[in-house]
Amino acid sequence: MAYFPTIEKIKYEGTETNNPLAFRHYNPEEIVLGKTMKEHMRFAIAYWHTFVNEGNDPFGQGVNERTWLTDDPMETAKNRVEAAFEFFEKLGVEYFCFHDMDVAPFGNSLEEFFKNLDEIVDLIEKKMEETGIKLLWNTADRHANPIYVNGAASSNNADVYAVSAAQVKKGIDISKRLGGKNFVFWGGREGYETLLNTDMAFEEENIARLYKMAIAYSNEIGHEELTFLLEPKPKEPMKHQYDFDAATSMAFLQKYDLTDRFKLNLEANHATLAGHTFEHEMNVARNYNALGSLDANQGDMLLGWDTDEFPTDLYSVTLAMYEVLENGGIAPGGINFDAKVRRTSFEMEDLFLAHIAGMDTFARGLKAAARLKEDKFFDNLKADRYASYQEGIGKDIISDKTDLKSLTEYALSNKEVKNKSGHIELVKAKLNEYIY
Amino acid sequence: MAYFPTIEKIKYEGTETNNPLAFRHYNPEEIVLGKTMKEHMRFAIAYWHTFVNEGNDPFGQGVNERTWLTDDPMETAKNRVEAAFEFFEKLGVEYFCFHDMDVAPFGNSLEEFFKNLDEIVDLIEKKMEETGIKLLWNTADRHANPIYVNGAASSNNADVYAVSAAQVKKGIDISKRLGGKNFVFWGGREGYETLLNTDMAFEEENIARLYKMAIAYSNEIGHEELTFLLEPKPKEPMKHQYDFDAATSMAFLQKYDLTDRFKLNLEANHATLAGHTFEHEMNVARNYNALGSLDANQGDMLLGWDTDEFPTDLYSVTLAMYEVLENGGIAPGGINFDAKVRRTSFEMEDLFLAHIAGMDTFARGLKAAARLKEDKFFDNLKADRYASYQEGIGKDIISDKTDLKSLTEYALSNKEVKNKSGHIELVKAKLNEYIY
Amino acid sequence: MAYFPTIEKIKYEGTETNNPLAFRHYNPEEIVLGKTMKEHMRFAIAYWHTFVNEGNDPFGQGVNERTWLTDDPMETAKNRVEAAFEFFEKLGVEYFCFHDMDVAPFGNSLEEFFKNLDEIVDLIEKKMEETGIKLLWNTADRHANPIYVNGAASSNNADVYAVSAAQVKKGIDISKRLGGKNFVFWGGREGYETLLNTDMAFEEENIARLYKMAIAYSNEIGHEELTFLLEPKPKEPMKHQYDFDAATSMAFLQKYDLTDRFKLNLEANHATLAGHTFEHEMNVARNYNALGSLDANQGDMLLGWDTDEFPTDLYSVTLAMYEVLENGGIAPGGINFDAKVRRTSFEMEDLFLAHIAGMDTFARGLKAAARLKEDKFFDNLKADRYASYQEGIGKDIISDKTDLKSLTEYALSNKEVKNKSGHIELVKAKLNEYIY
Amino acid sequence: MAYFPTIEKIKYEGTETNNPLAFRHYNPEEIVLGKTMKEHMRFAIAYWHTFVNEGNDPFGQGVNERTWLTDDPMETAKNRVEAAFEFFEKLGVEYFCFHDMDVAPFGNSLEEFFKNLDEIVDLIEKKMEETGIKLLWNTADRHANPIYVNGAASSNNADVYAVSAAQVKKGIDISKRLGGKNFVFWGGREGYETLLNTDMAFEEENIARLYKMAIAYSNEIGHEELTFLLEPKPKEPMKHQYDFDAATSMAFLQKYDLTDRFKLNLEANHATLAGHTFEHEMNVARNYNALGSLDANQGDMLLGWDTDEFPTDLYSVTLAMYEVLENGGIAPGGINFDAKVRRTSFEMEDLFLAHIAGMDTFARGLKAAARLKEDKFFDNLKADRYASYQEGIGKDIISDKTDLKSLTEYALSNKEVKNKSGHIELVKAKLNEYIY
Repeated sequence: MAYFPTIEKIKYEGTETNNPLAFRHYNPEEIVLGKTMKEHMRFAIAYWHTFVNEGNDPFGQGVNERTWLTDDPMETAKNRVEAAFEFFEKLGVEYFCFHDMDVAPFGNSLEEFFKNLDEIVDLIEKKMEETGIKLLWNTADRHANPIYVNGAASSNNADVYAVSAAQVKKGIDISKRLGGKNFVFWGGREGYETLLNTDMAFEEENIARLYKMAIAYSNEIGHEELTFLLEPKPKEPMKHQYDFDAATSMAFLQKYDLTDRFKLNLEANHATLAGHTFEHEMNVARNYNALGSLDANQGDMLLGWDTDEFPTDLYSVTLAMYEVLENGGIAPGGINFDAKVRRTSFEMEDLFLAHIAGMDTFARGLKAAARLKEDKFFDNLKADRYASYQEGIGKDIISDKTDLKSLTEYALSNKEVKNKSGHIELVKAKLNEYIY
Repeated sequence: MAYFPTIEKIKYEGTETNNPLAFRHYNPEEIVLGKTMKEHMRFAIAYWHTFVNEGNDPFGQGVNERTWLTDDPMETAKNRVEAAFEFFEKLGVEYFCFHDMDVAPFGNSLEEFFKNLDEIVDLIEKKMEETGIKLLWNTADRHANPIYVNGAASSNNADVYAVSAAQVKKGIDISKRLGGKNFVFWGGREGYETLLNTDMAFEEENIARLYKMAIAYSNEIGHEELTFLLEPKPKEPMKHQYDFDAATSMAFLQKYDLTDRFKLNLEANHATLAGHTFEHEMNVARNYNALGSLDANQGDMLLGWDTDEFPTDLYSVTLAMYEVLENGGIAPGGINFDAKVRRTSFEMEDLFLAHIAGMDTFARGLKAAARLKEDKFFDNLKADRYASYQEGIGKDIISDKTDLKSLTEYALSNKEVKNKSGHIELVKAKLNEYIY
Repeated sequence: MAYFPTIEKIKYEGTETNNPLAFRHYNPEEIVLGKTMKEHMRFAIAYWHTFVNEGNDPFGQGVNERTWLTDDPMETAKNRVEAAFEFFEKLGVEYFCFHDMDVAPFGNSLEEFFKNLDEIVDLIEKKMEETGIKLLWNTADRHANPIYVNGAASSNNADVYAVSAAQVKKGIDISKRLGGKNFVFWGGREGYETLLNTDMAFEEENIARLYKMAIAYSNEIGHEELTFLLEPKPKEPMKHQYDFDAATSMAFLQKYDLTDRFKLNLEANHATLAGHTFEHEMNVARNYNALGSLDANQGDMLLGWDTDEFPTDLYSVTLAMYEVLENGGIAPGGINFDAKVRRTSFEMEDLFLAHIAGMDTFARGLKAAARLKEDKFFDNLKADRYASYQEGIGKDIISDKTDLKSLTEYALSNKEVKNKSGHIELVKAKLNEYIY
Repeated sequence: MAYFPTIEKIKYEGTETNNPLAFRHYNPEEIVLGKTMKEHMRFAIAYWHTFVNEGNDPFGQGVNERTWLTDDPMETAKNRVEAAFEFFEKLGVEYFCFHDMDVAPFGNSLEEFFKNLDEIVDLIEKKMEETGIKLLWNTADRHANPIYVNGAASSNNADVYAVSAAQVKKGIDISKRLGGKNFVFWGGREGYETLLNTDMAFEEENIARLYKMAIAYSNEIGHEELTFLLEPKPKEPMKHQYDFDAATSMAFLQKYDLTDRFKLNLEANHATLAGHTFEHEMNVARNYNALGSLDANQGDMLLGWDTDEFPTDLYSVTLAMYEVLENGGIAPGGINFDAKVRRTSFEMEDLFLAHIAGMDTFARGLKAAARLKEDKFFDNLKADRYASYQEGIGKDIISDKTDLKSLTEYALSNKEVKNKSGHIELVKAKLNEYIY
């Protein structure tokens, strides 16, 4: 049975097409800087937004028309697997991501949940074999279930901690089985609602403890190549989340000596909620050698919550893709559309239209970034800007040949300090010439 | 000559007084939890706001009436020293803080600046001896001078880096001479205006390099007890500052192995600009064993810039003082009023009125915090809340006796996970009973 | 059947009590400035938050324990009425507010909904008669139903407009029957998701059209004393709501000549989301003679969405109550707790604890405001501050006796313009003396 | 004497040019939708940012290299006039805007200021005649002078009110003399620092009073065609400004019956500080028939203050130009670059580079907007979206043929309400095809 019977495989048709169900820019096999677009992108679909989200919001009920819904949760779950792989194939996306709760109903007990999971994962595995589609990452949803009202690994309730640990173990088992290379921890409830009743140090220590158990377990089952990814977010649902942003996450990982196996999964909308640009967060991660994977979406800069819109801003995406290129690619991570159709886009077809919008935007961003790189636009700009460190006192400084005394002597003897204008308006104007 | 001829030494007169130039709550010798108020507080005056600030803003000229101003910068500088120590004594504050540029005019060269500094520091030293007033911390202003337009230690211009280093050396020399225990680095220009032209990794490395030189130099001159303090701020004047917040600063300090000699100087208004409460930042710092000193002020939560208002919010100050008590005190740091009179408070007398407002607020905050501590309000709340970790599986978890497998077994066998309400509205209502 | 069997009527027990289920400050019959506290306050309970809200959030399922829930929607609705009146009486609150959708299930059609409504309103009416509890206001929920995905009176779909109008008619009928004095319009979906596809002028005109029909209908059925209240909110769920804040709402009401019958229902959290304080919004409304009623709650100033917390901030509530006193009271409006228990306060008892917290805070706020008024604190401050308009050129100006020419002559002849310091830090310190 | 001796008249050279001192997109005589680009744009230069701003910020001194500066204020003022007209001509911009304080030094008294103004205005007039360059608008700077510390027309000091009125009179005189068509009121100090000491109603009434005097005076001198423009801004320098945004300004103008002669001057960065997009503010103004003129710039969405950057965002500018086209043009207003070079762009040449960046961006925006209009992109989208109001019940509604009863009947008889997806992601993707 086809869930999208009227939709053919989405093709690249170029900018002249009037077909809304075609790519105008994303041409998977097109070579850019020596690699195909699809190798650069490693696009993934987020199971939760695309196959589970109902289109409700805090002030309104679900509106989404979804033909896989039935009265039987397991039947619905199975339908979703069918629909998902049909969607992946028609869209031409080779990776997907999921939470345990996305794919299987919890039922009445943890035991039943794991049983349901096993049954669905069988199905997923079979579909993966048939289609060649791969798991980018999976994760354990340790935030929606009411037991997580006070956190998961940060819960004040040790029984909750145990359930949380059990889900992580199950998730790692599934990862191994499905050949996952990354496992994500988004601490949706790992933070505080109010500092008044919270022992932050205790809670963070407990979280670190769980992460160490996860590393140990992955080693124990021979899944050492698995990279764990923290996903920073500053707030929502919590008033304050522990993994506030990339830098905060790196402070934590260093403190608990977790940097070997942990990297970051960065999301555009989480970046802006934390007061940063997406490219800032990526740059920070790169400086800590911790750029793991990306959640592609965008927020509304005038709104104070996570809107998870499909990315269509060419500026942000171009600069993000530039960071990817600078990083030598994003593998074994990828670009996961952690984005949901707006509530007013409630038809089945919108799932395709929205992903096409995002993929085309990323394609334009990749091409713009590639041009920037080929022209050495930023390289030249920076080489020129920092040139003073290539000789004389500058070279001495970065060679660790100076100290406060020698620098003072130099400064006192240097009669004029002369800066140069950065002509930043010109730089922005030139950058605009790459955005098309 | 007296700069405040109509003002007597400010006394504690209790809540019944109508005298605006008296303390209603701050009673320096009053014992609270076994220490005098003044020992708890270690109040300091910020030279820049109180003796240098002209009352200008981005849309208006200076308005402040200040009788120490003359046409001769050095004479003004000397007058300021006189005025400052008169102010410290009349207000009854035992510490002060300054930037090099606050106390002496730059003149026409670095050489002249250092000469001016020497002359003024002589005067300050003499005044300190006469009065017993102490230096809480000093710092080098590496942001106002036009040469720092592109940063100081993060400048793209190595000549600027050298001047910046020379100021730091001079500052450490002054610190030693004046018996300072802390030296602050606020990276007002250490950040980026735009990521487009910035090599963040390179710049941060250069900053770390300077810090290492500063440690080495302090050791070399026998000033090993000096604590260096980073002062986080997320933005302004830079679009993005490297020491965004406490956690970001700790990521940096760990990365560059600087945690032994560096702690944090936390400011209330910087906390809120970064999306945190003041108590959050203090708590983070404590968890990294890095709470160094405090800049007391407050921001306006509906404004997006650093307003540096005198602290009058009893909630914020109570929770801040609670963190101080939990930390076992703030020494060798202190509570520095990094606050400026509103532009409409342009008379000389306002300098007293504003500090009295701040000191009385902190006195009320200290007393409220002491009551919270004596009643074990938060202790009991948290002991009860986290009780599940004192026995059974919880105790095993925090004793590192569990792993994912054992926790999974436990979770699967545990039939019901039961959380308890946190009654947070009741908690807040009870907390209100302490605010008076 | 009692839904709160363990809870007695909440009594005023004073600040010494340890009973969490008692008022410490709210003493309904206590006289403040010549009126009883309860006459000042006119507290109301919000049906939606207290009896309908499930404790879900965008990242988590419902957690609230509510004993009135059954599998039958109508039975649940009837249970809620019982529970509500038990709650009102035990808490000692004399008013309540509701949306049509709060009290009765929609069922399968508008017809069925109206039938359900009639049945429940019968029950409510009977309970009102038995208890003397009164309706502060009701409203039509024109935002949760999926048909309102694109707005209600602003919908692009005329069929939706008609349903919306039908609900308003029904709401006015219910208002008349239950003796309501106010009817609220909160435009939860009246705004735009994106300006790209929106004809703002057309949509606003259609909204005005509905309001005129509502006035006409209320007159037609002899319910002329009904005041309609716009409730401003800047955003959420919409990206941008038309009734952004008080001033925006007044622009609209003036444009469409609706000021005779429309006033404003102001909410604290909506004010801060719009960049204003609560007291600002109240002051604006008063200046347009449009202060209708209040939704009491508070937001978190570091979060960008509507948290609807119970009000516990003494500063905000004191200043709000001062505006109420200046307004000569809030009747026929009231103070409606548009506040929900935090998700972690999921027990039945929390409904009482949270309202007690809010009512006690308002009682302290009222008493502080009364002291401010009795001392003429703000009156004297302002009389002194604006004194220059009581004589000479100032008096001429406000008597409309000057023009640009005469003022220019005056200005040119006036040799010195002298301002006085506002000593705002002293003012804030004095204000703090009223907060206890 | 030439202030920009190395710079020739800036020419349009197309996108292939490597000349940074050329237009790539702005081709003044190119016809777009039947008008030349320069007729569409009516670009103006802001005297304050371009000829007065020193490049200081709240944490740093001035850095700008400006060859017109001398030790004599009047000589500097005259040099600036020369430089300005050289700049206007070389850049090819036909309009300019200024505050009184921009062009002439205040000196020691109002009398001296007016004398200085007369002398400089003579010079400006002469230059205007020689060059054909025109005044877009002028205004009175009633915010920088220390006397305005508590406001201008909102000051608590009647003497200040008088000076403010005198400046306005002088400004209108100058407007008449120089043939200005618009006069702007930006209430930089018209708002409150704290509501605690402010009588908002009194202050707003006094402001309205001044505006009425301004209208009367303009009539008296036969300058009836002058349009007065309020310029909304929500905050900064004030904590809260009275003309918060377009809608708030319209509420005020309606209240005081000022809509005949007053329109709005809208600024992009002010819009975003108020929580709106630029296009939103323009759309609101259009709906009140009050779109007067534009201040072109852009803010940084992650910063909370007015950055006044040169506009380079193609999205924002395209949508703004679309509103201009929908408005039938912006005349007699224009597009004034109320933008300043970044502090790091401190060389003289940057003034050209920055304006070129802005003008090219607007040229691209105009061309994109023209394509959108030619394709009827938004027209068709909206016609389709609101089609239900073109027939049946929808047509009855907008023809005022329905009432609550008839709509209720219709709604009850209408069995199914069916909405259509807005496919907003597709819309955004299509919009992206216009941005190039």
